[in-house]
Amino acid sequence: MTIVKRHTDPERAQHRRTQVLDAAAVCFARSGFHGASMAEISKQAGMSAGHIYNYFDNKDAIIMAFVAMRMEHVNEKLLNVSQQADPLEYMCTEIAEIVDEQLDTALWGMSLEIYAEASRNPVIAAALQAADVHARSQLHGLIGAGRAQRGLAADADTVEGRTNAMIAMFNGLPLRTLHDPALDRAGLARACGVAMRALLTT
Amino acid sequence: MTIVKRHTDPERAQHRRTQVLDAAAVCFARSGFHGASMAEISKQAGMSAGHIYNYFDNKDAIIMAFVAMRMEHVNEKLLNVSQQADPLEYMCTEIAEIVDEQLDTALWGMSLEIYAEASRNPVIAAALQAADVHARSQLHGLIGAGRAQRGLAADADTVEGRTNAMIAMFNGLPLRTLHDPALDRAGLARACGVAMRALLTT
Repeated sequence: MTIVKRHTDPERAQHRRTQVLDAAAVCFARSGFHGASMAEISKQAGMSAGHIYNYFDNKDAIIMAFVAMRMEHVNEKLLNVSQQADPLEYMCTEIAEIVDEQLDTALWGMSLEIYAEASRNPVIAAALQAADVHARSQLHGLIGAGRAQRGLAADADTVEGRTNAMIAMFNGLPLRTLHDPALDRAGLARACGVAMRALLTT
Repeated sequence: MTIVKRHTDPERAQHRRTQVLDAAAVCFARSGFHGASMAEISKQAGMSAGHIYNYFDNKDAIIMAFVAMRMEHVNEKLLNVSQQADPLEYMCTEIAEIVDEQLDTALWGMSLEIYAEASRNPVIAAALQAADVHARSQLHGLIGAGRAQRGLAADADTVEGRTNAMIAMFNGLPLRTLHDPALDRAGLARACGVAMRALLTT
């Protein structure tokens, strides 16, 4: 793209970008990433066709913005965990909130779309992987320090395995709602707490 | 569809159906569920356009066949587990094999496609949910019996929660490979074993 993007008012531009992302979430959920067109997204956002290109070059750029938004959210959560007196205990006790958030159907539709697209689109896959490296390394630091403090095995391999198993469980939660819309969230949260406690503190 | 399906030779018909499924997996991975057309799939399967309709009415029917195939595979696995002397111990010790299978990249591309489609297609969602009810109830029976035998809490709520947390972890494994292609499978399997043992035997 060689068009010069005119974002003279940053606040207004940010508002417009958010409008496009909201509209894209609706269109992707309805038609899938490949089925939704930039024209459909701009119409859903209440913009004239073409106006959308002032904010995003293409659908890949929209997905990248979702990945960045998601990463920012995870970073905020992890920053909060790291500021607790006992981060591992905090994660084990706050598990119900984490589970509830992961089961939020508004989030998982877009996540599934991004995952499916990442499985064939190397640009999206690279963005997901970069975000994951970042979150994983923060979690690794927290879990390693918490385990060392407890006198538990805290070598890189053990901590990496525990971190990955924990993330796998969280990543799989949205799929539980898809397969079992009536699932008992509180019971699932309690069980996840059992698994978390074993992974982090034994 | 009102076309009479001519499956005079069941073995040949089954072979043709498998050919279509293999071709569909390639096309969905390349173009996504919405991007792939029945014409593209029949071409990939080496069939004349239109011939494919002798085996599948549409792309939904192809996805349904994948879900059925996957369910059959899970049923075989669960039957094997149920025939062991101590099914819970067996699951905890055989975890590395289960983890490896879940990390198989040939499987997850199609699974992600099916999940994304299920999030907007109620027919596919219903098929996934029916398969899940079936697998979950078998696992629930195995876990409940194993826990009762050990004198552990085996009420329906506890067993349901533990079962769901375990499945969430397995469902999330394919997403780990997507986010971290170089992950240490053996370390992840060991950590999953720790979580499994806590969920099943404590």
